[in-house]
Amino acid sequence: MSDGYEVLFEQIKIGPVMAPNRFYQVPHCNGMGHLRPRADAATRGVKAQGGWGVISTQETEIHPSSDLSPYAENRLWDDRDIPANRLITDAIHAHGALAAIELAHNGNHATNLLTRARSLAPVDMSLDLISPRQAAQMDKSDIKELRRWHRQAARRAKAAGFDIIYAYAAHHMTIAHHFLLPQLNERMDEYGGSLENRVRLIRELIEETKEEVGESCAVAFRFAVDEMKGADGMQAHEEGRAVVELLADLPDLWDVNVSGWENDSVTSRFEQREGYQTSYIEFVKEVTDKPVVAVGRLSSPDLMTSLVKKGVLDFVGAARPSIADPYLPAKIKEGRIDEIRECIGCNICVASDNLGVPIRCTQNPTMGEEWRRGWHPELIRPMEKEGAALVIGAGPAGLECAMTLVKRGMNVTLAEAGSQLGGRAVREASLLGLNAWSRVADHRIYDLKRRANAQIYVQSHLDAAAVLEMDVSHVFVATGSSWRRDGVGRSNRAGISSDGSVPIVTPDDIMAGKGIETAGPVLIYDDDQIYMGGVLAQHLAAQGHEVDFVTPASLVSPWCEHTLEQARIQSDLIKHGAQLHLSQTLLRLENGQATLSCAFTGQESNLPCGAVLLVTERQRHSALFDQLSALQETGEAAFETLELMGDAYAPGLIADAVFSGHLAAQNFDKDQSDRDAEFFRREYIDLSVKM
Amino acid sequence: MSDGYEVLFEQIKIGPVMAPNRFYQVPHCNGMGHLRPRADAATRGVKAQGGWGVISTQETEIHPSSDLSPYAENRLWDDRDIPANRLITDAIHAHGALAAIELAHNGNHATNLLTRARSLAPVDMSLDLISPRQAAQMDKSDIKELRRWHRQAARRAKAAGFDIIYAYAAHHMTIAHHFLLPQLNERMDEYGGSLENRVRLIRELIEETKEEVGESCAVAFRFAVDEMKGADGMQAHEEGRAVVELLADLPDLWDVNVSGWENDSVTSRFEQREGYQTSYIEFVKEVTDKPVVAVGRLSSPDLMTSLVKKGVLDFVGAARPSIADPYLPAKIKEGRIDEIRECIGCNICVASDNLGVPIRCTQNPTMGEEWRRGWHPELIRPMEKEGAALVIGAGPAGLECAMTLVKRGMNVTLAEAGSQLGGRAVREASLLGLNAWSRVADHRIYDLKRRANAQIYVQSHLDAAAVLEMDVSHVFVATGSSWRRDGVGRSNRAGISSDGSVPIVTPDDIMAGKGIETAGPVLIYDDDQIYMGGVLAQHLAAQGHEVDFVTPASLVSPWCEHTLEQARIQSDLIKHGAQLHLSQTLLRLENGQATLSCAFTGQESNLPCGAVLLVTERQRHSALFDQLSALQETGEAAFETLELMGDAYAPGLIADAVFSGHLAAQNFDKDQSDRDAEFFRREYIDLSVKM
Repeated sequence: MSDGYEVLFEQIKIGPVMAPNRFYQVPHCNGMGHLRPRADAATRGVKAQGGWGVISTQETEIHPSSDLSPYAENRLWDDRDIPANRLITDAIHAHGALAAIELAHNGNHATNLLTRARSLAPVDMSLDLISPRQAAQMDKSDIKELRRWHRQAARRAKAAGFDIIYAYAAHHMTIAHHFLLPQLNERMDEYGGSLENRVRLIRELIEETKEEVGESCAVAFRFAVDEMKGADGMQAHEEGRAVVELLADLPDLWDVNVSGWENDSVTSRFEQREGYQTSYIEFVKEVTDKPVVAVGRLSSPDLMTSLVKKGVLDFVGAARPSIADPYLPAKIKEGRIDEIRECIGCNICVASDNLGVPIRCTQNPTMGEEWRRGWHPELIRPMEKEGAALVIGAGPAGLECAMTLVKRGMNVTLAEAGSQLGGRAVREASLLGLNAWSRVADHRIYDLKRRANAQIYVQSHLDAAAVLEMDVSHVFVATGSSWRRDGVGRSNRAGISSDGSVPIVTPDDIMAGKGIETAGPVLIYDDDQIYMGGVLAQHLAAQGHEVDFVTPASLVSPWCEHTLEQARIQSDLIKHGAQLHLSQTLLRLENGQATLSCAFTGQESNLPCGAVLLVTERQRHSALFDQLSALQETGEAAFETLELMGDAYAPGLIADAVFSGHLAAQNFDKDQSDRDAEFFRREYIDLSVKM
Repeated sequence: MSDGYEVLFEQIKIGPVMAPNRFYQVPHCNGMGHLRPRADAATRGVKAQGGWGVISTQETEIHPSSDLSPYAENRLWDDRDIPANRLITDAIHAHGALAAIELAHNGNHATNLLTRARSLAPVDMSLDLISPRQAAQMDKSDIKELRRWHRQAARRAKAAGFDIIYAYAAHHMTIAHHFLLPQLNERMDEYGGSLENRVRLIRELIEETKEEVGESCAVAFRFAVDEMKGADGMQAHEEGRAVVELLADLPDLWDVNVSGWENDSVTSRFEQREGYQTSYIEFVKEVTDKPVVAVGRLSSPDLMTSLVKKGVLDFVGAARPSIADPYLPAKIKEGRIDEIRECIGCNICVASDNLGVPIRCTQNPTMGEEWRRGWHPELIRPMEKEGAALVIGAGPAGLECAMTLVKRGMNVTLAEAGSQLGGRAVREASLLGLNAWSRVADHRIYDLKRRANAQIYVQSHLDAAAVLEMDVSHVFVATGSSWRRDGVGRSNRAGISSDGSVPIVTPDDIMAGKGIETAGPVLIYDDDQIYMGGVLAQHLAAQGHEVDFVTPASLVSPWCEHTLEQARIQSDLIKHGAQLHLSQTLLRLENGQATLSCAFTGQESNLPCGAVLLVTERQRHSALFDQLSALQETGEAAFETLELMGDAYAPGLIADAVFSGHLAAQNFDKDQSDRDAEFFRREYIDLSVKM
């Protein structure tokens, strides 16, 4: 046990159950749910193995009128959903942790696209998502039914083996939360009006859950104490506190956070501080005697310990840090603090869920692959015999590949052409707001540097001849990519013509620290539409450049809706005076002007510009690999392994590059049939039962 | 057999198999696929029962590198997918039809979010969707692999019982299509450059499929002859024709259409003509001796017959008409032409698939519910004993409910307060482009009017007392909804304040034929964001109004992306001179001006306006129902059935209203347990197999 952190490993009672320590994975979605129950169970199980004392499910639909299809959250509509939930509790209990389930009725946040049920709300209103159907006011019998469904779900949760059962009023996502908020609840009956009335439904849900299962299960209440809207919404020190006072010791545990989801799970780009929710939730323990769990991207054991000792919280809550490092508690316990793989706050995990696919993590490539590929964040199949590997390129893919090969027992030479390790993880971290992304490199460099079987070289440019000379059997090429300078991209497959009158720069130029030398406005053309264009616009605007932001999309960085960042990005750009030219493609550059074309009508317009920053597509640096492949084909080389990885293989997110490096290191020595087995693995619909 | 249509019922040979007639359901997606195999099989089976001679699947992923997750298309990655496909062929064969399967590798249209495979393309390029990963150029060995996957999939398709096996190069959605198009294929090898080179992959896929399964299965080729981009893309009379000439008699059947999907499946709002693809595809039969199938929202047996007789096509292709009426062939055969439920061309079917949920249809409420609720488009459980029902309101819900009750054997009184039957189906059909929507009313009114057990009254306003006097046991209330005049909606829960200086109108006013009396610009505030705001903007612009279109969305009618209409709507509005104020909420109306607020920053701006048209939310007309419910509660009434339906129950699409009316008529006499059984029914992941 590491000195000073003992408090984190104390057993804590939650109602009738005992948590083995203070590490608490709060409910979070993972894109698996009822469509991928084995995968979900495996993901949760690994966290229990890594020392989390409590592991929660994702939100759990309690009834067909809370149908989130096509999204696959957890489901407990009736007894037939118990076996899939039992997989989860078994996986968690196997490692001595407690299993918690977040019961949810999503009210007007549920579109009910499969079941076609009417959506429920405190009063008539639109659905929360852009969907054609309106939700209708619940009458007294609807409320009674809802309470019955919640009670039944609690009973089923207990039958499935859960130890902690949640009522959930946070993220603006559940009917219990909707009843609480005056702007959504204009009811005139005993469920509307005064706070006491608006809390009534929540009180009933908690009380009835306790009645139903409280003897053996703890009943937790997840509650957003602040909407982060100032006086336009619930505030922690006004009604937020009053709610806690009203319910005080009714739940066995308070799980408190801020709403909406984009505030609770804010990215590091917009909130750098660890523990950023503390000032909102620290009052809670003053009001209740029950244990409190809270979050705030907590990865540092010192901060955790201090929050516990200062009486801010009893349990260290985590979603994202437990994704980046399922073994965070074990590493603290064993004094391996430096080995913690810290969350970079990029929200790729959130994006996966929003996309309806299994969770991915930039830092932890095994996340979401525990069942499908049998991957584990800490345990890895050792090599059957020793061997030497050359990894070319020390970006995210090369670093991950090298680190994984080293862990497997290979003797690894990592050769980086540049003067710095880390590749794009470090380059992009130089941009405004992204500094936490350098942790991707830091973690791996730290790990590699203390291993005897890793040799690292910088400023070591290798050509094919040099590679051959090294006489290594296993060669892994991760030579990255660069942003195109010709404008080829989604909207201009033939490129953007230019008469040379406007200087053209690329994201790589900016990341290389080259200033843009123009007094005129910088036109950023974002045909990529992921994050880079928006980041650079913020970066250049902060440097004092006049920015014209041109994109064929109707929003700035539309893909960042998945990471919950889009509104912040666009709002920030407007506030910094950037001019937005949305739904416009860039056709050509002539006479110091850009010619734009309306994405809908083709109508052209001109825009003077001092320089153009093209964010379109990337070019793979695969020349070295291609040469080596050619030598291999002619027999001039005889590598046992020759693998292309990362952006040189397929430009993508840093998460994709890390995954690619990990995959290569895990699979290069497998038979094709074993590779295929995991590549093809998926869960199937049961056809055996007559329904 | 109806006179004159005999030709439609001729047997036609397709390679080694014989189609029982000329009715051919071309491949179409239905949001079921590998996640809902029973539902998919049931949906296809009902069409076979209704007389379609050939029934095709949706596109079928042939390999994990064509992974369309989270969308559930059909899947045939390996042998384990055969049983689910066997369900489909069995359901089709049970009624004597042929089963066709559309094999697809989606290239850069596949995001591979589950499998994380690199996406494939003729050359390096972005993914087709806004997704962070780029696709990479296929090398020779990739092409060889692709051909092997396609061949294996063909073998599995045969093993699953399919009679016709497709190669697919249409909708810009498959790698075979991408290789064909010069703007996507800049390869320098034998697969790029000349048309013959660009066709090479397709030729190989067809040849190898024939080699593999051609003795017992027909091999079809689905091909988009025209990209509808004029000289910027493939044109039917240029390269489109040349492709058909090159391949001529190689496939056993040509399935021809236009690309992209938004052109192939254009809505009636933007293309009124039945058979709108004829001018593009009519050359095909001049070039090949093999049978040809083509589409164009064909519902009229006269047009079908003429197209066959004129030698334009051999098979009458249909996707949407087969969805609206699975019994279209049977009805033609039996001379029941007037009973055909004609497709209204609204693309709610397409939207369901784009939303990743089971297919829905405005005209046919049973579509997508064949397995889940056991519904059938023509056969319905008769009442156990006679009974009388009162249906109040003759909109889509009321008409559907009345028609269904009548078919079940009830004596039905349908009372409409207004002077016209059809409700919103007829009112909305008065708006620009929507006239085909009146078919929703026409079909049902026609059916009801020829039934002896239906009594229809117009201008028959009923209050609670009048209902009680009628002494009917079963009362169904479908009193509709109206658009709010106070601005309450998604972005303004408290409504929009007004000093009365600007006249406010609602969509109902326009549909009631009230002109807007202003010389000034009309501000349309679309807080609904579905279709109505955009329709009204086009409608008023066409009437000569100056239009300012204000919406919190970043696009005009964003939901209409699901119906493939969004780009057309926005482009049309811009061309008609409408001013778009996107990402803006309407705050208040004062002194003849509207105050807008930026959805991102809250920055306010003013806009002078002559009138404001508010498209925000709808108010349910549930007063009568509420009164009757109250009487029921006090015992003053004793209805056996009192049901609220349609927009009065929950405002939504016309499709939702029709569904709601059908549901009430099907289920009012069922036990709660039977209702629940179908409400809760869904397919489960198989947990029994160790994987």
